[in-house]
Amino acid sequence: MFPSPFISKAVHVCIDNKLPTLAVTRFNQWHQCQLGYRKQKYSISLKSPLKMPTEKTLPAIFKHVDANVTTYKNLLKEAVAIPSVSCDIKYRDDCVRMVHWMEDKLKEVGARTELRDVGFQTIDQKEVKLPPVLVGVLGNDPKKNTICIYGHLDVQPALKSDGWHTEPFELVERNDKLYGRGSTDDKGPVLGWLHAINAYKAVGEELPVNLKFVFECMEESGSEGLDALLIEQLKPEGFFDTVDYVCISDNYWLGTTKPCITYGLRGISYYFLEVECAKMDLHSGVYGGTVHEAMSDLIYLMDQLVDKDGKILVTDIYRSVAPLTEAEKKLYTSIDFDPEAYRNTIGTPKLAHNGVKEQLLMHRWRYPTLSLHGIEGAAFQPGAKTVIPGKVIGKFSLRIVPNQEPEEVEKLVFDYIHKKWAERGSPNKMKISAQSGRAWTEDPHHPHYQAAARATRLIYQTEPDMSREGGSIPVTITLQEASGRNVLLLPMGAGDDMAHSQNEKINCRNYIEGIKLFTAYLHEVGKLAK
Amino acid sequence: MFPSPFISKAVHVCIDNKLPTLAVTRFNQWHQCQLGYRKQKYSISLKSPLKMPTEKTLPAIFKHVDANVTTYKNLLKEAVAIPSVSCDIKYRDDCVRMVHWMEDKLKEVGARTELRDVGFQTIDQKEVKLPPVLVGVLGNDPKKNTICIYGHLDVQPALKSDGWHTEPFELVERNDKLYGRGSTDDKGPVLGWLHAINAYKAVGEELPVNLKFVFECMEESGSEGLDALLIEQLKPEGFFDTVDYVCISDNYWLGTTKPCITYGLRGISYYFLEVECAKMDLHSGVYGGTVHEAMSDLIYLMDQLVDKDGKILVTDIYRSVAPLTEAEKKLYTSIDFDPEAYRNTIGTPKLAHNGVKEQLLMHRWRYPTLSLHGIEGAAFQPGAKTVIPGKVIGKFSLRIVPNQEPEEVEKLVFDYIHKKWAERGSPNKMKISAQSGRAWTEDPHHPHYQAAARATRLIYQTEPDMSREGGSIPVTITLQEASGRNVLLLPMGAGDDMAHSQNEKINCRNYIEGIKLFTAYLHEVGKLAK
Repeated sequence: MFPSPFISKAVHVCIDNKLPTLAVTRFNQWHQCQLGYRKQKYSISLKSPLKMPTEKTLPAIFKHVDANVTTYKNLLKEAVAIPSVSCDIKYRDDCVRMVHWMEDKLKEVGARTELRDVGFQTIDQKEVKLPPVLVGVLGNDPKKNTICIYGHLDVQPALKSDGWHTEPFELVERNDKLYGRGSTDDKGPVLGWLHAINAYKAVGEELPVNLKFVFECMEESGSEGLDALLIEQLKPEGFFDTVDYVCISDNYWLGTTKPCITYGLRGISYYFLEVECAKMDLHSGVYGGTVHEAMSDLIYLMDQLVDKDGKILVTDIYRSVAPLTEAEKKLYTSIDFDPEAYRNTIGTPKLAHNGVKEQLLMHRWRYPTLSLHGIEGAAFQPGAKTVIPGKVIGKFSLRIVPNQEPEEVEKLVFDYIHKKWAERGSPNKMKISAQSGRAWTEDPHHPHYQAAARATRLIYQTEPDMSREGGSIPVTITLQEASGRNVLLLPMGAGDDMAHSQNEKINCRNYIEGIKLFTAYLHEVGKLAK
Repeated sequence: MFPSPFISKAVHVCIDNKLPTLAVTRFNQWHQCQLGYRKQKYSISLKSPLKMPTEKTLPAIFKHVDANVTTYKNLLKEAVAIPSVSCDIKYRDDCVRMVHWMEDKLKEVGARTELRDVGFQTIDQKEVKLPPVLVGVLGNDPKKNTICIYGHLDVQPALKSDGWHTEPFELVERNDKLYGRGSTDDKGPVLGWLHAINAYKAVGEELPVNLKFVFECMEESGSEGLDALLIEQLKPEGFFDTVDYVCISDNYWLGTTKPCITYGLRGISYYFLEVECAKMDLHSGVYGGTVHEAMSDLIYLMDQLVDKDGKILVTDIYRSVAPLTEAEKKLYTSIDFDPEAYRNTIGTPKLAHNGVKEQLLMHRWRYPTLSLHGIEGAAFQPGAKTVIPGKVIGKFSLRIVPNQEPEEVEKLVFDYIHKKWAERGSPNKMKISAQSGRAWTEDPHHPHYQAAARATRLIYQTEPDMSREGGSIPVTITLQEASGRNVLLLPMGAGDDMAHSQNEKINCRNYIEGIKLFTAYLHEVGKLAK
């Protein structure tokens, strides 16, 4: 467990925090020095004397949730059945359908909604319409706090032939787990908010907060169009003026049993490395031996990027990474993380960094990593396709960390690739482009985090770990910037949910207790001072 | 143009061959020394005094062909519309449908047909039924020669998003070209035989030969099951006992205007190089930095195989390649081949071997080449998929040449990969497997080749080049072995037809004149001595 240094002194008195003030100070120093987060001004006074959530409201709500499990599963089944794969335009209509589906649900709970047109994306020199962003407002009581909730309705691609045991777009329950693409990333959590609102209504209670919603359908594809909507439209229009807090549920617990609240994410810098040797694919028998093949050039370039131990070979790439201090180093020791269980879950013969816990956590959270994802334009099917691809696009990405700036990382990668390309001396055409998002850290010392921690304790009867994540949700930063408010990541799913992978699932427990967690979180934030 | 040395002295007198006997001798020496073909015994006497094809029969047939162009195109459209992609089991039903479709057509022209069960293939540890092989017999006149015709009904995969201008499985005519997957490889030629038979019937002429048919639907996937059928079933059953000649139309002219007849093919040795780091795909944010990624291992191995100039790096791989003699070297000089036109057709910035004609031809025909085809299991879609693939299978192949034996090549590649893998020192699992077929050469000096040459001259009014090809049709060797007869490749399509590639087409001219060529070829073979 993280030594919960994120509990402020003021909150400390009321939540039975057993940590010494020393830890708080130590963490704050480290946090401020090493992570360079933008410390926000906030009041730490509370609206009313601190006490545990009311005895009446929440238990009734929880009872209602427990009585409606089937309804919640059925609704998730409906959502999963819409294959809203954002990276493949052949599913674009499904993405749009998914947004409309969710709009209807928000309307049913009384929200005012709007579908915001965010323009076009360019694919193969063609302009393709982006799915609209669903924006909603529920409640405008000036006495209540307002939370802006972000979620996404799109999913990663999935084919049964990728190795799924069941149809990816059919929610299947087995051993108390709900399998299906999007079950945990991010349709389950998005529906969790809907169910939480409904639960308040069902027991005849007013919502303790006002809510605003931003639900997009391009998150898995770089959230195209969203930044412009948030910064250039919603912000000037005053959408964020009344927002007090931002909450995102689009990540996972570190392990499988212990809840956490997340205050940091790595950024991402995603590369498209294109090599072209011919204007079409060529038969390898007929043309093999007469062209400089694009694939061998691309494979050469991709092989220059990272060594077998995961060390990134791009010149100077580690230069601006926040140095590891002794103070920070010690923090990793107490985190609840079992490398052997982790290794077994993913079935890898041997973990990197010799499986040393602290090293693994640091390389997930605070060091950059580089992964080679695949090649577009080459043979990918089963069987023996004998083609010389004419144009291939290698895909790789770096997860970037404080204090790496995306522009700096992109320049280093571009320079390195161009240098290696010159060394190669191929006559083919090469080009490289990137999409990047900065790493993010927030102040976990904020009362908003403490409210979420109280809600989590109430549901799971344990102190949540305050953790960071290796993944990236670039919109987190945009929402931080657009709202100027504290942003919190409140995970619903577990660490073995296999988002982006085959057999993605959400545990029934995480889904149902997650709904209760959301109701408790709304309740706790409702109690924070306006 | 090849110096037509393939015309024997006996035939020379009747076909106005202008080449000196010296050329014949020179070629024969070279051919016997360098290619090590299995010289077959045959008679060079002809059935009747040599003369051009009868004035009556063939012109009437050609007239009929010209009058039925629309019918021929419509039938090809029907065949192309069946997406008989053999390498992807999701199209397996379409493969079976395609075989049935063709069986009906053969029955309509009076052939006795049979669908031969060739068992199962293993995909991902599962047994998957192979499409049946269509075997047919038309005519059994003991006074007539019998030709065994082979063709295939399956096609390479094709998606519009690969870069097709039209739907791949919809035959579209534009600028006197018929675009569609399988139009030239190999549905057009297979239908060509059908139309040729029909044309004889239409003008009230008996077929000048007996025909036997072997049409399979797994050619693009290693012809699984076919060798066993031919060698272990059809041969013992006596299917080949009456066969005098074998003809395959599954290749292309060297260029776009000049017809050719093909007497040599490279073999193929296709590799599946699998690396596994986890039992499922992993989210690169969550897991990046903690596993030894399979992709970087695979990319490393694939980068060890070939240099930018196409030189194969596998130890000793060139050792058994038939040495190039001065005599052979000179033969390439006179071949009709324009590197600049070739370069323009495929749109490559610079050809290999500095675009020198002789070098290009030799590297297409008589030297091995290695192509990297792609990676199964990795991200291949457009967009920014952020996955660490758990298991990836790199695909590459060598086109092998006389005197390389598949077993020898496989051993060299396996040894080399295992050596490089040991050098890598990765903890992941690696395995490599292969499918191979030997290179093939035939005796172009045979009367069967001269019959085909006469037929070609009659249709195209020019001397065909006698050429080899860089591609591989492993069944050619099996048919040579099973029948013990001369095997001939009689191409219908042109060199820019883009088989296996985007926008595959067949020229209307090649399709229609090709039908006439087939009728003339049947006529010419009919005249050969029994």
